[in-house]
Amino acid sequence: MGFLYAENFEEQKERAMKGLRKALAEDKVDHDIIPLLEKINALDNYFTTSSCSGRVSVMEMPHFGDKVNSRWLGKWHREVAVGEVLEAIGKHSEGQLWFLVRSPILHVAARTMEDAVKLLNLAIGLGFKYSNIKSISHKKLLVKIRSTERMDVPLGENGELWGDGYYIERIVGIANAQVRRFKGKLKRLEENIEALDK
Amino acid sequence: MGFLYAENFEEQKERAMKGLRKALAEDKVDHDIIPLLEKINALDNYFTTSSCSGRVSVMEMPHFGDKVNSRWLGKWHREVAVGEVLEAIGKHSEGQLWFLVRSPILHVAARTMEDAVKLLNLAIGLGFKYSNIKSISHKKLLVKIRSTERMDVPLGENGELWGDGYYIERIVGIANAQVRRFKGKLKRLEENIEALDK
Repeated sequence: MGFLYAENFEEQKERAMKGLRKALAEDKVDHDIIPLLEKINALDNYFTTSSCSGRVSVMEMPHFGDKVNSRWLGKWHREVAVGEVLEAIGKHSEGQLWFLVRSPILHVAARTMEDAVKLLNLAIGLGFKYSNIKSISHKKLLVKIRSTERMDVPLGENGELWGDGYYIERIVGIANAQVRRFKGKLKRLEENIEALDK
Repeated sequence: MGFLYAENFEEQKERAMKGLRKALAEDKVDHDIIPLLEKINALDNYFTTSSCSGRVSVMEMPHFGDKVNSRWLGKWHREVAVGEVLEAIGKHSEGQLWFLVRSPILHVAARTMEDAVKLLNLAIGLGFKYSNIKSISHKKLLVKIRSTERMDVPLGENGELWGDGYYIERIVGIANAQVRRFKGKLKRLEENIEALDK
């Protein structure tokens, strides 16, 4: 198609890279995703605008989906130990208590629609099946890269806990298997991303 | 913008409407979403291509995300009773056992990018916060409308059950609250969709 979507792509990329350097300097970027970000940003037709390497968390919220009033009791960008999760659960006081797994998410700006579709197809082929072209405006063309791993497990409400230790052990085991899966996908994306340069 | 994206929009709509009439005749469309579909399809610049009114389910799968080898033990497009869920759980034999809630999902084709953005903004404003422009090709411009409600709760594995009756009662309560929320959002979308005709 070759239609130049973003008239000022270079300018936008420069601004995004400045923001990324600042975030890196302040240690605000998940470590194990940094090599992938660097490889994407080395490509002429793409740049990253935000990313999360995936996470396991324990969260308290008035009701599901209310992000404004939610509070993390524990958050990890890696496999977790049962003890850590139990400790986070122990901090629960009010609202709904949830154990969550979220797969990695990357937002990547593409220069043209053709570039966006190429990246989308690569990502989907490597197991990031919930990827899409996220937002289309006159200003930016964004590819959202996301995988399927996910858990949303209610564990209690208003101070009452529902799952026993054995149940927590089991869900932590499943969460860790999901973490291993999505980390593997990130690694494969990192190994294959340079194909987009052709 | 007014850019005519789909050159043969009328033709595509006619084909989609034929498919929908067939699905309706075969009772394959969730009942409570039919009035909304009819209102969308009465608009000149849109047509629906697929939909689900949201659901609660009990599912067995080798591992999370493997849809090909998964099996529904129970599925409901409405609030559920604890007894129904326990009955479905009782059918579990192998693989991972999950209790799932999925919010409604609608795919709507739009005539132009301007039409797509108008629908996207309306949907997001009414609480369908995970909506986006799903797929862009030379052939079709699709708006995906989706809400935030969701549960992914592991309940057992290979015949072993992890949650006791009290826990099942609690998660069914949360699931039913989510069902009420997303049904309310569907109703509001139905009441406001005609604004797109202006």
